[in-house]
Amino acid sequence: MTESFRFQKVLTDVKTGVYVRNYRITNEELGMDCRWFIEKRRLEGGVSDGVDIVTVDNGALSFTIVPTRGMGIWKGEFKGLQLGWKSPVENLVHPHYINLETRGGMGWLYGFNEWIVRCGLESFGPPGVDIITDEEGNKIEVPLTLHGRIANIPADTVKVRVASGYTLELEVEGTVYERTLFGPSFKLTNLTSTSLNSNTVRLTDVIENLKSTIGEMQVLYHCNYGVPFLEEGARVVAPFKTVAPRDAPSVERIDEFDVYGPPESGFVDQVYFCELLGDEDGRTCVALIDRNEEKAVSMSFSVEELPCFTIWKHTDSLENGYVTGLEHRPSFPNLKTFERKQGRVVKLGVGQKYEVHIEFSVHLGREEVDEVKDRIEGIAGRAKTKVYKKPNPKYSPT
Amino acid sequence: MTESFRFQKVLTDVKTGVYVRNYRITNEELGMDCRWFIEKRRLEGGVSDGVDIVTVDNGALSFTIVPTRGMGIWKGEFKGLQLGWKSPVENLVHPHYINLETRGGMGWLYGFNEWIVRCGLESFGPPGVDIITDEEGNKIEVPLTLHGRIANIPADTVKVRVASGYTLELEVEGTVYERTLFGPSFKLTNLTSTSLNSNTVRLTDVIENLKSTIGEMQVLYHCNYGVPFLEEGARVVAPFKTVAPRDAPSVERIDEFDVYGPPESGFVDQVYFCELLGDEDGRTCVALIDRNEEKAVSMSFSVEELPCFTIWKHTDSLENGYVTGLEHRPSFPNLKTFERKQGRVVKLGVGQKYEVHIEFSVHLGREEVDEVKDRIEGIAGRAKTKVYKKPNPKYSPT
Amino acid sequence: MTESFRFQKVLTDVKTGVYVRNYRITNEELGMDCRWFIEKRRLEGGVSDGVDIVTVDNGALSFTIVPTRGMGIWKGEFKGLQLGWKSPVENLVHPHYINLETRGGMGWLYGFNEWIVRCGLESFGPPGVDIITDEEGNKIEVPLTLHGRIANIPADTVKVRVASGYTLELEVEGTVYERTLFGPSFKLTNLTSTSLNSNTVRLTDVIENLKSTIGEMQVLYHCNYGVPFLEEGARVVAPFKTVAPRDAPSVERIDEFDVYGPPESGFVDQVYFCELLGDEDGRTCVALIDRNEEKAVSMSFSVEELPCFTIWKHTDSLENGYVTGLEHRPSFPNLKTFERKQGRVVKLGVGQKYEVHIEFSVHLGREEVDEVKDRIEGIAGRAKTKVYKKPNPKYSPT
Repeated sequence: MTESFRFQKVLTDVKTGVYVRNYRITNEELGMDCRWFIEKRRLEGGVSDGVDIVTVDNGALSFTIVPTRGMGIWKGEFKGLQLGWKSPVENLVHPHYINLETRGGMGWLYGFNEWIVRCGLESFGPPGVDIITDEEGNKIEVPLTLHGRIANIPADTVKVRVASGYTLELEVEGTVYERTLFGPSFKLTNLTSTSLNSNTVRLTDVIENLKSTIGEMQVLYHCNYGVPFLEEGARVVAPFKTVAPRDAPSVERIDEFDVYGPPESGFVDQVYFCELLGDEDGRTCVALIDRNEEKAVSMSFSVEELPCFTIWKHTDSLENGYVTGLEHRPSFPNLKTFERKQGRVVKLGVGQKYEVHIEFSVHLGREEVDEVKDRIEGIAGRAKTKVYKKPNPKYSPT
Repeated sequence: MTESFRFQKVLTDVKTGVYVRNYRITNEELGMDCRWFIEKRRLEGGVSDGVDIVTVDNGALSFTIVPTRGMGIWKGEFKGLQLGWKSPVENLVHPHYINLETRGGMGWLYGFNEWIVRCGLESFGPPGVDIITDEEGNKIEVPLTLHGRIANIPADTVKVRVASGYTLELEVEGTVYERTLFGPSFKLTNLTSTSLNSNTVRLTDVIENLKSTIGEMQVLYHCNYGVPFLEEGARVVAPFKTVAPRDAPSVERIDEFDVYGPPESGFVDQVYFCELLGDEDGRTCVALIDRNEEKAVSMSFSVEELPCFTIWKHTDSLENGYVTGLEHRPSFPNLKTFERKQGRVVKLGVGQKYEVHIEFSVHLGREEVDEVKDRIEGIAGRAKTKVYKKPNPKYSPT
Repeated sequence: MTESFRFQKVLTDVKTGVYVRNYRITNEELGMDCRWFIEKRRLEGGVSDGVDIVTVDNGALSFTIVPTRGMGIWKGEFKGLQLGWKSPVENLVHPHYINLETRGGMGWLYGFNEWIVRCGLESFGPPGVDIITDEEGNKIEVPLTLHGRIANIPADTVKVRVASGYTLELEVEGTVYERTLFGPSFKLTNLTSTSLNSNTVRLTDVIENLKSTIGEMQVLYHCNYGVPFLEEGARVVAPFKTVAPRDAPSVERIDEFDVYGPPESGFVDQVYFCELLGDEDGRTCVALIDRNEEKAVSMSFSVEELPCFTIWKHTDSLENGYVTGLEHRPSFPNLKTFERKQGRVVKLGVGQKYEVHIEFSVHLGREEVDEVKDRIEGIAGRAKTKVYKKPNPKYSPT
């Protein structure tokens, strides 16, 4: 690759009537030796019928984006290791089969099996009733469902790009609209990209308020890991500033908040709310490291964009979904009414945009794992983590 | 065209297994000079995936019917002018993506962007609880959602016809069933037609009760206009017999109930309930006329079929959906319990049919606009409009 | 057919990406004289758009399985006689068009028109609130909708088989998963089969708990018959051990619980809860016999697998759906809270399976009908039916 170039293919554009059912572009078509591909398919049959997926393989790392499910990333693989988890919900579920209101607003769980899934944009957190003031000044109740709508809205545009500069870049861009009359109207533009043979996926989101009035926005990046990165003795490592347990079961094991147990049937979930330190540019890093410190996944992001970090431990049996969620966002996953009081709901002005940049990397071998640990230690410096022994009213209702 | 003929093509018939994915018939195929076409397409991708649309172009006027959304009319165009409005919900949304129960029964709004959309047939109006007597004589509660189901049910048959008599007629016919066991069972047969080069769309609906018991039916024609017909200083002109405001914000501007303001961010909606006079045949006419009286849209219909007329003003910002709804129906858009008490819920006997005929026309140039005004004045005669200064308990709960 | 063989075709396998849109295999292709076929089609248009159906015709008996609707059997036909009923909901409805939460949890009825439809697997019965203990030991409320989800979940695998042994067997196998995180996770494997020219359909279900914890399971086989087997004077014949009315209207006509009236507009439903006797192998038989005892449908099953039998009479007008439901299951169709108290909710241990075997047969001519009656009498022996005159608190809440 001596010359720089940029190739783009529009796969979906609802407004102009573009839709490509199946598509594949590989190194061979562009006359390159290094192996890579981007493939778009429409799934057929069962609960996946009609789901569009885009798989990107950079030669070392591959991952599958799901435009039909709000541009989430279903699964990844790096040198034979699975990125993501094994949910009881095994197949990709088309949003048509999801009723978010089901089981008292818990319907989101019927489609939950992604590696990386966004929650939001009107709200995330548990189901419950929000109270807002309508245009006439009346208080009205808005029932919210678990983790909001965005993961069950399809992208109205999808593009793939191959660009060559210093390295070869493989990119997928999609836009998802969450909008209604008399309600929120947001545009999410997601760019997911990776470089040839790299160990990293980069995710860039721009969330724009399309209304002429202020839009209250919430977004959460629910990043989920199971076997092989999660195992007994695996640890989550980060420059923790504060850590607080959510509730009684989390209080009980607060001393090992950063360590994972083995699959345990009937495990009672534990949740820890954290604040992280950032480096001089405000960037931080969180890693999930296996027991032997021989492999790790890390996520780098900005503590300004995503100041609230949550560890969700669901180390239930393999059948029931052995998983940990490492979740970053502007606010904590409580009812919107609580987060609003804490000043943690983002208020987007007219045309205002909220940007998020996250890098997901995989590290194999003790040397690479040590590098990540060093980086995190570098950010933490000499700061000591403040570990609350009880739920903190700043982070969660008590 | 000297001979009369009739050409018909069945595009959908679920019962007999007919389904034509894409279809187009034009003047050329029938050996005619005058330009016209009817085109059927199935949209793909994003929120519109799987939506069937039928576009009719009579040479001057074109419009797009949406069989998948209860035979509503999405958009029209006459000599370069848009008929309809610009909703925050920009693309056609497949009913699969609509959950009518969402946000406390307000899910209908997530798909609301049509020029002409039917509400009903079990109920329309705000979400709320209806109380009915079941077959065993027990009072039971039936939760109703905003504006009912019919706009989110697909047509089970769709036919297009080209017929030649005095003029060339382009017709689309569809049937939509709203039915369940232990509940209402209605058949809506819709015929939408237009004549070559005319400025008019004619809509004929026949709603039939399929049960062997009485069926309570409600139907509303929600006809929506934005720019360019709606603008600051535009007026709604009609032979008003009575006008009553719905609530406090509507009371406040009752003196200018028929005049529109400019886009105004955060505008509080106003609603006026009206009765109209009809001519000797019971026909009446409503027009939306621009400030300079140089263009207008009109709707002609029967005051016996549709005695209740409502003006909905939502002159919010362009981003939030600058629009007015001119709505005609057998009853007003209140909770069904209220309308039942006022005797305004239609009771269809066994096999009984309810017919509705509406003509939608566009008028360009001062001369044509004057003609419409004259026609409306002719209907009004010397009658004086009774304008209520407060909500009238006959029209809305107070 | 001298040699035994086994031919199999996978039509759907979501996990491996197999999906065959349309398929047909007939006797001719396998070089046989006797006429039979298996045909798979994907319906298009209206409320049936995207529904997969598999029709099996053994030469005498044909029936249509609906993988998209949980492997229910839509309709059958035997020598020109319809098996099933005429619901007000005439066409097959894709689950996408069903919102189970609608009308207070009664949405299931918007798609109800099958001959044989499963209810379950988390629950069946009327909509209502279940109270369960979650993993943390807290009592939580779970709203349940009418008759559960399983009939509105598509099969993730579908296979057809033709096997030759003593007779030629035509088989359809499908698996349907009802699963979510933090909730039940069941796998239903259904095998529906018939022999060449036989009068019988055999249904075998295996329901497996996929969780590592106990799964409370409910399943009901809702088998529905209208004209021509149901008519004035038709009777349900079975080795009744006990019969109890559900409510006042059922009490009133308890003396003729086993006899049907003519279509009667506005009929108030009657329901009878029954226990049946079995033969030495625990098998029992229920038949619906016409007035002249010239035709009958029968169902044979195990009283151990399905100890609770219910007669649902809905002899309303033909327009409103003249039908009787003969329903067998492990428990009665009451709220899950009630059935749990009676010990009638199945508790499946880890990896445990629940099996059900039912045979549906058609009998034409007095001789064949007499044979069925004899068989049932043989099972009943000299036992006398205990008919309760009032609702029995063991069977239904009072």
